[in-house]
Amino acid sequence: MPVNLSAPDPDALLPVSGIALGIAEANIRKSGRKDLLVMRVDDGARVAGVFTQNRFCAAPVVVARQNLSALDPGKSIRALVVNTGCANAGTGNDGLKHARETCAALAKLISCASAQVLPFSTGVIMEPLPVERIIAGLPLCLADLKPANWARAAEAIMTTDTVPKAASRRFGVGDASITVTGIAKGAGMIHPNMATMLGYITTDARVSLPLVKRAVAYAAQRSFNCITVDGDTSTNDSFVLIATGKAAMTEITSADGAEYAAFRDAVTAVATELAQAIIRDGEGATKFITVRIDGGKSEVECRKVAFAIAHSPLTKTAFFASDPNLGRILAAVGYAGIDDLDANNIDLYLDDVLVAKNGGRSPGYQEADGQRVMRQAEITVRVVLNRGAASATVWTCDLSHDYVSINADYRS
Amino acid sequence: MPVNLSAPDPDALLPVSGIALGIAEANIRKSGRKDLLVMRVDDGARVAGVFTQNRFCAAPVVVARQNLSALDPGKSIRALVVNTGCANAGTGNDGLKHARETCAALAKLISCASAQVLPFSTGVIMEPLPVERIIAGLPLCLADLKPANWARAAEAIMTTDTVPKAASRRFGVGDASITVTGIAKGAGMIHPNMATMLGYITTDARVSLPLVKRAVAYAAQRSFNCITVDGDTSTNDSFVLIATGKAAMTEITSADGAEYAAFRDAVTAVATELAQAIIRDGEGATKFITVRIDGGKSEVECRKVAFAIAHSPLTKTAFFASDPNLGRILAAVGYAGIDDLDANNIDLYLDDVLVAKNGGRSPGYQEADGQRVMRQAEITVRVVLNRGAASATVWTCDLSHDYVSINADYRS
Repeated sequence: MPVNLSAPDPDALLPVSGIALGIAEANIRKSGRKDLLVMRVDDGARVAGVFTQNRFCAAPVVVARQNLSALDPGKSIRALVVNTGCANAGTGNDGLKHARETCAALAKLISCASAQVLPFSTGVIMEPLPVERIIAGLPLCLADLKPANWARAAEAIMTTDTVPKAASRRFGVGDASITVTGIAKGAGMIHPNMATMLGYITTDARVSLPLVKRAVAYAAQRSFNCITVDGDTSTNDSFVLIATGKAAMTEITSADGAEYAAFRDAVTAVATELAQAIIRDGEGATKFITVRIDGGKSEVECRKVAFAIAHSPLTKTAFFASDPNLGRILAAVGYAGIDDLDANNIDLYLDDVLVAKNGGRSPGYQEADGQRVMRQAEITVRVVLNRGAASATVWTCDLSHDYVSINADYRS
Repeated sequence: MPVNLSAPDPDALLPVSGIALGIAEANIRKSGRKDLLVMRVDDGARVAGVFTQNRFCAAPVVVARQNLSALDPGKSIRALVVNTGCANAGTGNDGLKHARETCAALAKLISCASAQVLPFSTGVIMEPLPVERIIAGLPLCLADLKPANWARAAEAIMTTDTVPKAASRRFGVGDASITVTGIAKGAGMIHPNMATMLGYITTDARVSLPLVKRAVAYAAQRSFNCITVDGDTSTNDSFVLIATGKAAMTEITSADGAEYAAFRDAVTAVATELAQAIIRDGEGATKFITVRIDGGKSEVECRKVAFAIAHSPLTKTAFFASDPNLGRILAAVGYAGIDDLDANNIDLYLDDVLVAKNGGRSPGYQEADGQRVMRQAEITVRVVLNRGAASATVWTCDLSHDYVSINADYRS
């Protein structure tokens, strides 16, 4: 019983000037499925990314970080290459070599330097990357390049995802209408730290590189860094923002103006839609849960409390069962690691129902009201800490039998 | 398919001089089950406890802490009262009142002060304690008091446990043979922080109160604080050590001698057996997993890495499936929060099989070897960080369909 889960309408995905996408079946892990994507980027684009904080980060993450930071000032990123079926993580020096060979092969085909290609992988950890099959698939991707290929690109990067994830927005700068289009994948091993499994957002906006970097961090913190399926931070999380600069507009160079805010907010809106789509498609998910914490001393402590609730297997199984066993939420608040938290000040709401007041069951709370909300497919848990003015919101899903089945069977 | 899961042999549970136990059916949540335990303690015992660090700690935890710390020097704890079926947590001032009323009622029946009684509760959170039923059950418990009642006492404190948990040890001090006997309960909401759900260990040893306090903290840190089922730290965790002083021995007053070490180690051995029994009976558990981290800079960082592995839903489902998808373990090591960890130095063993060497798949590793170990009911995961001399060991279980079923249905 998935929640509001549907593939994006391909016609609603807007091409971005300066971006073309090509897909191939490279037989990386299984045959007969699209598992390789090349995103070609026109010369002059500004590109920034955020990557997993996992110390065991994958070889392509190492190479992508290096290539982004070591780029000569006159050169820009010209292509991204993404494979599924193998994460190329826990693969040591061979893994780094394979990621660089992939970049070099694509660079040769499109006549640029290796360092102008960013590699990405997702799939099983600690298995060697079948680099020959990937290299053999690259010409097929290039033959397939089209600006309108967004829906097929979103499909090509899926692993345990059940639907592709893509979104578009438009915003205006002066007379120019600017497009933002992005894709993402992810359904398990989802507790991004700086980014999610894989997310790519492109725009034709003309924006200076420092502001592209600023916007990618801003958007990540409010979207992919606010979701969790199972609390497992992946080795391969990557989120890249590409501004091709093809739109007829004056370059945005100041973070203070309305133009930057419009750009940043459109990117964040696409990122949030993609992040929420990952949760709706969370492995085995039957419920979409918004956890909002208000009245904290800082956003950091609000996020701690929110993630304690969102990670608790006990609250997640209660959501799965539609069981208003809400003391489990209070228990999670209590162990979130806020040492000076006064439990007697805490209020708990389930949608509009006041469940607990001052740390105890609210006198007016009727279990039937809690039961009514718990049966919904979308639920908001709100905890008021009553000790400050900070807030935070995270999104998660329930823990179901299917989560166990999917992860017990993933490699079979 | 539970793992080495059996009830203790009642004849192997040794009575402790100065301790008597009585059980009753008080109909606290369901009728026809033993749900109330009184442990009567002779005058003069030294008692110390450690309690949950959850900020939402239950009313009985607040009262037990107060009574232990505020006891007049000439007075000792004379009884413990434990109910299942209701945690008396998230119950505000009414909860405190109910816990104190329970103590007062028992104190009146056994002619001591209220502060000489320690209350404990376990069960559903945020429901009012049916204090009248508990008070009505106290005379039944007192009528049932027997020194040999350990097996029935272990049964009376069970909730989702499938077997009672109890253990005994003997050790010698001079000519005296000293007994240590304990009971515990717990199967879910298990990630103790200072103690587990409920654990009680008693001994007839004569030991000074400072050393009883020291031994309870020592034993907790090496037993109940080393286990996790689901990473949820309960509101009610309590672990109490009672030394009745009835044995014919000179009082142990120095932490430096062999006598204290023998006492401490016997208590720790009982605590460890009880803690491991909780994991073997973990909700839905089919595997018993020992996670050992070697070569760390500190015990703290080794525990962080061990718990990252032990809490990961992805590693836990892989164990359930007997799937050697061991990259998931490396991913958990990577996100454990050790900022300066060099992934290229890490080795991973599954029992005696070297799986990963220097952060990548070991050249000699055959998946068949990993598969053989993963099929076992008991598995040791060993990660060598190669950056120091510290170690830590924690115990956990797998994440199965039954965990979801048990927690989705717990209140129904």
